[in-house]
Amino acid sequence: MPERRATATASPNIAFIKYWGNRDPALRLPANASLSMTLSNLQTNTTVLFDDRLEADQIEIDGSPASDKAASRVTKHLDLIRTLSGNPTFANIHSLSNFPAGAGIASSASAFAALTAAASKAAGLELDKKQLSILARRGSGSAARSIFGGFVQLFSGEVNTDGYAEQLAPAEHWHLVNLIAVVTKEHKSIGSSEGHMLAPTSSIQAIRVQDTARRLEICKKAIMQKDFQTLAQIVELDSNLMHSVMMTSDPPILYLEPESISVMKHVTRWREDGLAVCYTIDAGPNVHCICSLEDSPEVERQLRSIDGILDIYRCSPGNGVALAVTNEQSPQ
Amino acid sequence: MPERRATATASPNIAFIKYWGNRDPALRLPANASLSMTLSNLQTNTTVLFDDRLEADQIEIDGSPASDKAASRVTKHLDLIRTLSGNPTFANIHSLSNFPAGAGIASSASAFAALTAAASKAAGLELDKKQLSILARRGSGSAARSIFGGFVQLFSGEVNTDGYAEQLAPAEHWHLVNLIAVVTKEHKSIGSSEGHMLAPTSSIQAIRVQDTARRLEICKKAIMQKDFQTLAQIVELDSNLMHSVMMTSDPPILYLEPESISVMKHVTRWREDGLAVCYTIDAGPNVHCICSLEDSPEVERQLRSIDGILDIYRCSPGNGVALAVTNEQSPQ
Repeated sequence: MPERRATATASPNIAFIKYWGNRDPALRLPANASLSMTLSNLQTNTTVLFDDRLEADQIEIDGSPASDKAASRVTKHLDLIRTLSGNPTFANIHSLSNFPAGAGIASSASAFAALTAAASKAAGLELDKKQLSILARRGSGSAARSIFGGFVQLFSGEVNTDGYAEQLAPAEHWHLVNLIAVVTKEHKSIGSSEGHMLAPTSSIQAIRVQDTARRLEICKKAIMQKDFQTLAQIVELDSNLMHSVMMTSDPPILYLEPESISVMKHVTRWREDGLAVCYTIDAGPNVHCICSLEDSPEVERQLRSIDGILDIYRCSPGNGVALAVTNEQSPQ
Repeated sequence: MPERRATATASPNIAFIKYWGNRDPALRLPANASLSMTLSNLQTNTTVLFDDRLEADQIEIDGSPASDKAASRVTKHLDLIRTLSGNPTFANIHSLSNFPAGAGIASSASAFAALTAAASKAAGLELDKKQLSILARRGSGSAARSIFGGFVQLFSGEVNTDGYAEQLAPAEHWHLVNLIAVVTKEHKSIGSSEGHMLAPTSSIQAIRVQDTARRLEICKKAIMQKDFQTLAQIVELDSNLMHSVMMTSDPPILYLEPESISVMKHVTRWREDGLAVCYTIDAGPNVHCICSLEDSPEVERQLRSIDGILDIYRCSPGNGVALAVTNEQSPQ
């Protein structure tokens, strides 16, 4: 069998209406629908090369061999693609991100979106974006959203084939800025996959899930109408709801760090003082400060005055997954 | 009418199963039952003197005239007592606490417990502890618990007369220690009374209330059996549940400060490392570190190494309200 190679680039996304918990863990069908903005500037670049001389997948992430845990997750995902293509060949995978993994910047979203696009292309599958989204979801729920650019909704899905994302509005629709206040670059102690499993142990999860359609509708409308104040309130509420579920699960998860609380408090004060800014926090301590383009320089300036912020990433609405290289077929 | 004076001393309490929200705000009938430990060392001492020469209540708190807000709350409470005694005389009130007010150390609990006992005695009412508890509840829900010492349960009550507290076990039952890590001495921006009004606006409140009987039973059993690990888990869960309601109310309330999160994280780590300690946080940022007598010196030592802790109060299970002076009748 010929060697086949493809490279794809994908970006993480920040969820405005968050996904937490799976209705079907095996299929990673989310407990609730979600809504996100794909982020510019942050990227994962992944090359997949199927090579019939290999006796196992060889996986390198950010310059080092993948940990057993990460490798087994990637191999499991490649197995899906091998099943679809009917070809059991192992692959060589190189993945490189320009931002820290596992710190609440949805590194698994960009990683599995890029992996899905590169691997399916390299395997000779011709999948449309909806199909890529379904497949990416199997690797990481939020990866389903990173297939698309701009503002994206992920349906929770009843069965595998309706658990996919779609674009609500392209990146150009609203030039929001996401200033990510990085308060730690350490890998979080409880990964999202593990955390999702704990969601049902919180007495809050059921009511959070049940009320999602309402919140999502408010958020969607705020985005379509570019209504920042409404967006701010629903985004912060949704973030607090998810962290409430986390804090009350068994065992509890406290992703927030002291600096997270500090930024949250500053952000709400700045908004009271007239700046168009709100916070949202994924499964990690870093705080995503969503703001208007106009107010973003002032927000950034103020963020820099807060103790304990290690770095600030500036993102805008970004693009969906893209194949960087067309399918190459090397001579046999 | 003769001048009548009485002085009472009461202590705050720390709720293990927390009261948040009222089913009947006018009567301050709590949305859910609660369970607390009355605290030694911290005290409010209140003297009430009914004097028919006065044309209004004169209220001094911690050496200064009471703010309009505090004064009107005290006067409203005295009105209840005046109605019960049938005597409309105004009063002179001096109240002094040995700890900061409004920072999550239940200052209103000790204040209204002491005020209720002193004022009712000065007014010539002979109330038993259950009646004092019902009356104190009208001033501050958690004051109903501070009437009793040791470990105390407050029923939520369907009507005014069954919203009272009772002692589960006396102070001597279990020598727990509460090390209160004071992270701010500022008065909180949203008082408990205001916060209670917001509780129903959180989608989490109904489920928290509904599940209270279960949590309270676990907590009560843990206390009776002196089972620290079970106590620790249910106390931290209950605290996190209340702060979840607060963070998701409209408007949201974030009582936690960066230092609160820091102490919470340290405490759970210390417990993993074998110390008998857990955290609980009332409507404020200060963290109550509940620990065994045996481990309390080590917990205190470790607490002192955390940045941002201004002070540490050490309390044990304390006594209920006590009249300091018998009823005095001055000559007419």
